[in-house]
Order: sequence, then structure tokens, then C-alpha cells
Amino acid sequence: MAFEFSIETNDSGTHARCGTLQTPHGPISTPVFMPVGTRGSVKGLTPIQIKDVGSSIILANTYHLALRPGSEIVRELGGLHDFMQWSGPILTDSGGFQVFSLATLNDIDDDGVSFKSHIDGTPMRLDPASSVKIQEDLGADIIMAFDECPALPAERATLERAVERTIRWAGQCRDAQSRDDQALFGIVQGGLNLDMRLSCMEALAELDLPGYAVGGLSVGEDPDEMATLLKGFAHQMPADKPRYLMGVGRPIDIVRAIASGIDMFDCVMPTRNGRNSFAFVEGGVLRLRNSRYKLDDTPIDATCDCYCCQHFSRAYIRHLFLANEMLGPTLLSLHNLRHYHRLIERVRAAIRAGTLANLLTTMEEQHAAPTLAAGDDD
Amino acid sequence: MAFEFSIETNDSGTHARCGTLQTPHGPISTPVFMPVGTRGSVKGLTPIQIKDVGSSIILANTYHLALRPGSEIVRELGGLHDFMQWSGPILTDSGGFQVFSLATLNDIDDDGVSFKSHIDGTPMRLDPASSVKIQEDLGADIIMAFDECPALPAERATLERAVERTIRWAGQCRDAQSRDDQALFGIVQGGLNLDMRLSCMEALAELDLPGYAVGGLSVGEDPDEMATLLKGFAHQMPADKPRYLMGVGRPIDIVRAIASGIDMFDCVMPTRNGRNSFAFVEGGVLRLRNSRYKLDDTPIDATCDCYCCQHFSRAYIRHLFLANEMLGPTLLSLHNLRHYHRLIERVRAAIRAGTLANLLTTMEEQHAAPTLAAGDDD
Repeated sequence: MAFEFSIETNDSGTHARCGTLQTPHGPISTPVFMPVGTRGSVKGLTPIQIKDVGSSIILANTYHLALRPGSEIVRELGGLHDFMQWSGPILTDSGGFQVFSLATLNDIDDDGVSFKSHIDGTPMRLDPASSVKIQEDLGADIIMAFDECPALPAERATLERAVERTIRWAGQCRDAQSRDDQALFGIVQGGLNLDMRLSCMEALAELDLPGYAVGGLSVGEDPDEMATLLKGFAHQMPADKPRYLMGVGRPIDIVRAIASGIDMFDCVMPTRNGRNSFAFVEGGVLRLRNSRYKLDDTPIDATCDCYCCQHFSRAYIRHLFLANEMLGPTLLSLHNLRHYHRLIERVRAAIRAGTLANLLTTMEEQHAAPTLAAGDDD
Repeated sequence: MAFEFSIETNDSGTHARCGTLQTPHGPISTPVFMPVGTRGSVKGLTPIQIKDVGSSIILANTYHLALRPGSEIVRELGGLHDFMQWSGPILTDSGGFQVFSLATLNDIDDDGVSFKSHIDGTPMRLDPASSVKIQEDLGADIIMAFDECPALPAERATLERAVERTIRWAGQCRDAQSRDDQALFGIVQGGLNLDMRLSCMEALAELDLPGYAVGGLSVGEDPDEMATLLKGFAHQMPADKPRYLMGVGRPIDIVRAIASGIDMFDCVMPTRNGRNSFAFVEGGVLRLRNSRYKLDDTPIDATCDCYCCQHFSRAYIRHLFLANEMLGPTLLSLHNLRHYHRLIERVRAAIRAGTLANLLTTMEEQHAAPTLAAGDDD
């Protein structure tokens, strides 16, 4: 059955769980990390490479694709799966976050948002119905409700207004759906305020949507504040639905959130950092442009099974970045995505073994005393 | 035996031939097209992808690698094959062409060239012995003699001086060789002057080098003038040695040169044009940024077996270029290299069938009346 979500293991020591979400394009094992393919391409990687690093579902951005090439063009070309030749599940966001963060805002009102395209200034409007329409054109397996996402810190009144609109808009999104092969996830707002989050969640739960996301985090606040909020909130989200934390984050943020009960994540960090010569390794980050790697013939991570680590030296990757060769960003994007997926695999195994709390403790200790990240910059 | 060159078929109607060149990293079937990996990377492609499109040997540039990361660093890291993880044969040029075309020249004298790095202005000197030393550090299977390569048109005296130096330097290069696992190819200069080319060839033949290249073409002259020179010259090069035309060229130039007796080619055209949204198809070139491809769900070339044509539409590739996605250059580089290799495969089959003259006639007709190239630009 499409979108059935089954939980196989609940961790004994934390709120973490292992599960499977069925989609029209195949099952997703959770917890899951979703690479970001903003404009219909995970930057620098072919679909084969994305699959090879272990990605099972990818994310694409409604706002960007609506602006270019346009959602109707994607629909005419067979939808996003055909367009970008990704045969697995896809999730599209609602465009809300980008409208607030990228576009030149014209006006937010109770019914939607008027804005100007950040590409060419074209006046546009996005509201619950049009966001759903665009996402139906794109044809992702999971689509997101259109929400208002205020930057943090925000006044209480701003957050309350955003929560109120987000709830009302979620209902309008559900009513606007004309396809039955897409799961509409609701988005919970409410900033760092637990009560507001809970009341938002309660209202959205009445819609009985197939999944719920935590939005409005990783938008300027301290990551520890986010972790505290999630610790109190995530496990109070409907237990039988997948829980998705939008736009997060660093490995430590992800494992903390999983322990708090979150199932799904997306973030540009592995690919964006990779394009900027940063490689994730256990306990830190290497900056491959650093001169210390000039003659380093070891792989980025000797324990990693990715194509980059199985073949190339740090010295070669440094050379690629200094010579502005595209292959550098490609190889580090591959490695960083693989690093994230391997972390998630370790987390899943720990949940099954009932040892996630230990893994998290180890990561917290590494995080408190980073042996690599701090000393690695030029 | 390393570097044995055997000819399997001589075309009955032209001077073309099919052969095999043995190298320490495996055999090369000729005629052959070699992708260019200037800085130790064929731009945007992994070694797996390069192999998958059918490349058997790649080229790297001595000048660029000597400047960055430095040939001694490459040597310390195990040589170019290990450094860039290409397990097949590699050819390095001598650096001569780049010194004359890219560097700020300080002084050309009878013994070599003093110049300033185009990267940081560092004063450097390249001469026959240092070029061989650098190429031994890099460790390619085929290395090139250091030559003087004047731009065309050039005064007769300039060409004569270049020929004289090129001959003398070739002997010095041979004397400077300390490795016996690298084939040193001589380079023939002499501009568009057949007599000068023949006398240069005659002098170089006395060195009995394992291969000979035609240098100093595709440097400003009309491609038809190049074709005329090659028609009279290529078949007079030693018949039992591989003949390499450096830096050429368009598909028509390559097939003309093969018919004249050339065996080996390299050119940045397939990858550089690919990065600029141009795709080679039979009889012309498509510019994928063109708005006519906005809704075109067909592949670039329905007859092509490359990953790009087997999966992606022209509309998607156009979108990638308009959105500045790295995947666009990668996919078109893949396709264009595959297009070149498929052309060479057709040429080899035609040589074996004795029908190369017919294939060339067809290509000349398409070339005279291009159906795609001329009308395709925005």
C-alpha cells in the first residue's frame, strides 16, 4: 500500500526508531538522509552516482523548479522522475522557505505570498493551492504543505501568526490535492516555543496527514536550542507517521534529532561543503585545500567505502581544488553523501542493537573536543 | 613487447590503416582519439566514466602539471597513473606548445625557452633535458620531444629555425631519457611547407624513434590548408611507426587525416565544447542552450549509446545549462567523447571493409552543406 509507514524497532534508550515508508517509487528505510537536488540535479552527480553512494530518496525544490524551467514544462516532459531520470522516491518542499529566504518579498497576507523571482524579478504569487498545483506538476512522491517560515529569533506574535496561517494553509493544501499518488506532509511551526509547537502539531494532527515535518528550524538559532526543542517535542509528534526535520544538518544534529524521535532529514551540507573542499570524517571536517595535504597519499577516510576514498589521495583531491577542476567537487560530494549515509546506517544498526545512546554519547564527546575541525584550516 | 606497433589492415582506397600499439599499460587500437586531461583530470569526468565512453588512452599536459602540482610531487605520489587513478596508457606532451601559447615568453634561444608561469609569474626554463625529466617524473607511457612550435602564418626563416631546433632538441631528448619504459615520439615541424616537413621528417627518422607526431598545425591556419599538407605528407612518414597529429580537431579534420595516413589524435574540442553546451551529432553540432529544445524530450542523438543519450532529454540538458548545473557539462562531455569514439569505431570498420573513401565522401558532403551547425544558434 502506498505510503504505509511501519516501525520495525523502537530504541529502548531513546525515542529513535527504525521503520519503512512505502512510496510509489519504492520503499524508504528510516531514519533516512535525503540529498538535495534543488534544480532537478544533485549538483555534480549523475543519478547512477547518487544511487551508488546509497541514496534512496532525493529532495527537489518547488520554488526553484517553478521559476526555471517551470512546473508545467516538467509536467509536459513526464514529471520530475522522468525529467531528471531518478527512478527512486522524490520529495519536493512547498516553496515556502525559499520565498521567505531568497525572493524579494512583496507582501505576505493571510492567503499567500506575493514576491519577485530572484532570477529575473518577475512578480509571482504562491499560496496553498498553487504550491500543491506546482508540486502535482512536478509529481514527487512526497509533497509538503505550504507554510510560513519566520527567521529566528522572532517575536511571539510573529510566530503565532505563522502557526495560525500554517495550520489553515495545511488544510487548504489537502483540499487542493487532485492526485492520490502523492503523500502530503504537514509542517509544524512555532519557533523554539514548545507549547506553540505542540498546539500547532495538535491542530495539524486533526488533518490525519501521512507525515509531519518540523519546519522553521536551522534558520538562525543556536543548534543547541534546536536540539533542546526537539528533545521535548519530536517524540510527541504522531508516533505512527514519519517525522521529518527540514534542512538539518550537521552529523551531530542529525543523530541528536534521531534520538529525539525524528525519521527523515535533508540538507545541502554534504554537497555544498564538498564543493568548497570540505570533507566529513568521523569526528570532524578536513579542508582539502590545506597545504598539509600536498603530499598526503592517504584517502580522505580509510574506513570509507566510497569511490573517492577507494581510489583517490588527499593530495590529488587538493590538486583538483587548487586547479579548479570540476572533478574535485564531484568526488567530495560523493564522499560526503556516503559519509552521511554510512552514519545513518550506523545509527540504524545501533537502534536495532539498543545502543544508540552510546553512539550519541561518543559523538557528543567528539563534538565537544573536535580533533580535526578546529585545527584544520589554513 | 612494449611499444610494438603492428598494422593489421591497410585501406585499399586511402592511406588509412588499422593497427595496435602496445604500451606498458595495455594496447591501443589505432586510429585512436585521446581525450585531454590537461591538469591530470579529463574535466568533469571520473576515470570510470572516461573508460565507459570508450577511451583507451588519455593525454595530460607537461606544462600545466609542472607548474601545479609540480612533477616531483606527482612522482612522489607514484606517478600520473596512480595520481589520477587512470590505469590505461597516458601520453604527455612536451610542454613546448603551451610555453609558446600560454606563458609570458622571456626568451627563446638555441637551447630552450625561458618563460614566466601564467599562474603566478614564476620565472622558469624548459629545454629538451628538463622536459624529458618532467615527463619521466610524470611517468606517461608515451612522452613527446620538446619542440619549437611557431604560430601560423610564419616567415620561412622562422619555420626553418624551428625545424632546425626541433630536430636538434629531439636528439637531446632521446639522450636525456633515463627510463626504458616510455616511448619518446619525435615531432615534425615545418608549417604548411611540404618540403620542409619532409626534410624535418627525414632527419628525425634517423633517430629511429618509436613514433612520430605532426606538430605545429591547428595553430591559426585554415583547416583546408592543414588537410592539403597532410594529404601530401602523412603517408610519407615512416609506415611502421604510429603517426600522431597533435591537437586536431573537428570530426571532418580527423577523418581526412586518417585517410591521409594518421593514426592518433587528441583535442579538447569534445570536452570544451561540451562544457559550453555544444553537442556533436552526425553532420553538425547542437547548441543545447537554444530555446528550441525547451520541450524537446528526445535524446541528443537517438543513435548514440552513451549514458547521456540513453537517459536524458535535450530539454533536461538545456535546463541544466540554463541553471548552471555542473551535470550539464559532465553529460555533454560524456556524449561528445562517445561521439568521437563512435566515429573512430566507424572509421576502423570502414578501413577493414575498404570503404573509408565512401565514408569520407559522405562526411565531406555533410560538411559542405551543414544541416544543423549553421542554423542552430540562438
